[in-house]
Amino acid sequence: MPSTPDSALLITIDDVREAAARLAGVAHRTPVVTSRALDAMTGHTVLLKAESLQRVGAFKFRGAYNRISTLTADQLAAGVVAVSSGNHAQAVALSARLCGTRAVILMPTDAPTSKLAATRGYGAEVVEFDRWAADREQLLASMAAERGLTVVHPYDDPYVMAGQGTAALELIEDAGPLDVLLVCLGGGGLLAGSATVAKAFNPSTCVVGVEPTASDDWQRSFAAGRPVRVEVGPSIADGQLTPQPGRLTWPVVSALADEIVTVTDEEIAVAVRFCFERLNLVVEPSGASALAALLAGHVSGLAAGSRIGITLSGGNVDAARFAKLIAPG
Amino acid sequence: MPSTPDSALLITIDDVREAAARLAGVAHRTPVVTSRALDAMTGHTVLLKAESLQRVGAFKFRGAYNRISTLTADQLAAGVVAVSSGNHAQAVALSARLCGTRAVILMPTDAPTSKLAATRGYGAEVVEFDRWAADREQLLASMAAERGLTVVHPYDDPYVMAGQGTAALELIEDAGPLDVLLVCLGGGGLLAGSATVAKAFNPSTCVVGVEPTASDDWQRSFAAGRPVRVEVGPSIADGQLTPQPGRLTWPVVSALADEIVTVTDEEIAVAVRFCFERLNLVVEPSGASALAALLAGHVSGLAAGSRIGITLSGGNVDAARFAKLIAPG
Repeated sequence: MPSTPDSALLITIDDVREAAARLAGVAHRTPVVTSRALDAMTGHTVLLKAESLQRVGAFKFRGAYNRISTLTADQLAAGVVAVSSGNHAQAVALSARLCGTRAVILMPTDAPTSKLAATRGYGAEVVEFDRWAADREQLLASMAAERGLTVVHPYDDPYVMAGQGTAALELIEDAGPLDVLLVCLGGGGLLAGSATVAKAFNPSTCVVGVEPTASDDWQRSFAAGRPVRVEVGPSIADGQLTPQPGRLTWPVVSALADEIVTVTDEEIAVAVRFCFERLNLVVEPSGASALAALLAGHVSGLAAGSRIGITLSGGNVDAARFAKLIAPG
Repeated sequence: MPSTPDSALLITIDDVREAAARLAGVAHRTPVVTSRALDAMTGHTVLLKAESLQRVGAFKFRGAYNRISTLTADQLAAGVVAVSSGNHAQAVALSARLCGTRAVILMPTDAPTSKLAATRGYGAEVVEFDRWAADREQLLASMAAERGLTVVHPYDDPYVMAGQGTAALELIEDAGPLDVLLVCLGGGGLLAGSATVAKAFNPSTCVVGVEPTASDDWQRSFAAGRPVRVEVGPSIADGQLTPQPGRLTWPVVSALADEIVTVTDEEIAVAVRFCFERLNLVVEPSGASALAALLAGHVSGLAAGSRIGITLSGGNVDAARFAKLIAPG
């Protein structure tokens, strides 16, 4: 069981292993995809963990399920609540159904119709709110209090971090030791879990977080040595637009990750196109940012022939947007 | 080693196993993708063999490599030749390079620029010809004779059939026994190899070939009990537009396959969209036709809860065409 929030580093490799045991037979063990073309282009051995092929199309399922499946019987009887316009919404909705509880998902009214429908499709009650008028944290807190629901946070929760870390655990188990691990970074749950795993296997594995330049809170926070809040700009990487590091992910990530790099929308689009053209994989912009960092040459100090693990973290993108992304530049 | 063309059934499960040994570490062992949404929609357990994630993006690599890697030293010294506007071109080009021989690929001048470039990218010499003016078989024969090259046929070759059958072998090894196996059908190499495998594991597995209605040569041939030539109409399933069953694939397929069903372009487009929206996989129309048959309800007599294997045979489709296919209908 994860330690309480105030203890050292919050999660350990054992928490991730326990999460893996809970997820066995429930989450997909997603494939590690390789491409000789990519290896030839980069001069490395690149191992892509295709979480775009995970249930609900993203790694978020791993964290949500690990959280909800460990709730008490009373908590499960009452239900859960989350706020999300993206993959976390579907991850919580599906996990709740699988755990025999009910989920309320707060979604902005301008969320894509397909995401609203998919979330309802998993049996969740969707409560829409006006993104500009409402304070979502306030809304979440009062909904939880009124109905006695447990909040499932997308990243600031040890069970969520540990669950999300199982992607890196499978990657290393299936593909072998890594010199470098590149992980998409928004709230920091995936990176916290992944860094915990990578460093437990080999402390000299270089763990790099990748975020969009439009939301470089982690890079600035690393430079400052403390969590810094930034003004978030527009970006195609809609799953990574956090203004500041998570309260619980910050101590883990700042202790374990070696470097934070940023990528532009253009660099992300190149990676999305690469996944389409050369890998036949549909990867959403936020899910392609770690690969984008490698393709754009932003990862410094790589020895030739490095073994580089990369998480392709999600694949949920609607047809019109995807068509625009892959259109020949 | 495959039997000679005039013996009973040409290939056996042993030929496929030998091919698998040659392909080990060379071809990707592609993942078997599952979708609870698909299972819920159909009432079955559906096991999708994602050959769209194979090297060169299609199962064709398996057959071409198994053929070229078993050529004699003299044949390898002289080189190989093939005619193709599609995946076979890249499969032969890459296989030739891996086997240390050179490939000449005859491609129509109107083949997609991306396919011409990709084939050249694998180191092949591309010779363009006018699709309407030239007799491709004549051209192929004279090129082979003049330069002493060995022709690599896309399906009418026991080594090609056996190599292509390794996809079904992996599917059954990885996913377990099948009640039904649905296979995309053009020249018949994939179906010949797949049926050989499926029936060897379990003679009562129902093996179904799926072809576009625009090219229903196999269905008509099954009805007639002999190979029938048809007029091929236009279809988005450009990899399956053969006017008649292969000379060598016909005896295998007609002996082992249980049924041939056809799918319309509209039904194929639904399957391509399903793969995009729900699986985050890029699958080309020809590669999605077997799934299309299931989604459209064309597979008759399925007991509820059947275990259905389906080959998603390729994923090479250019961006403009893919955008059109996935556009909300």
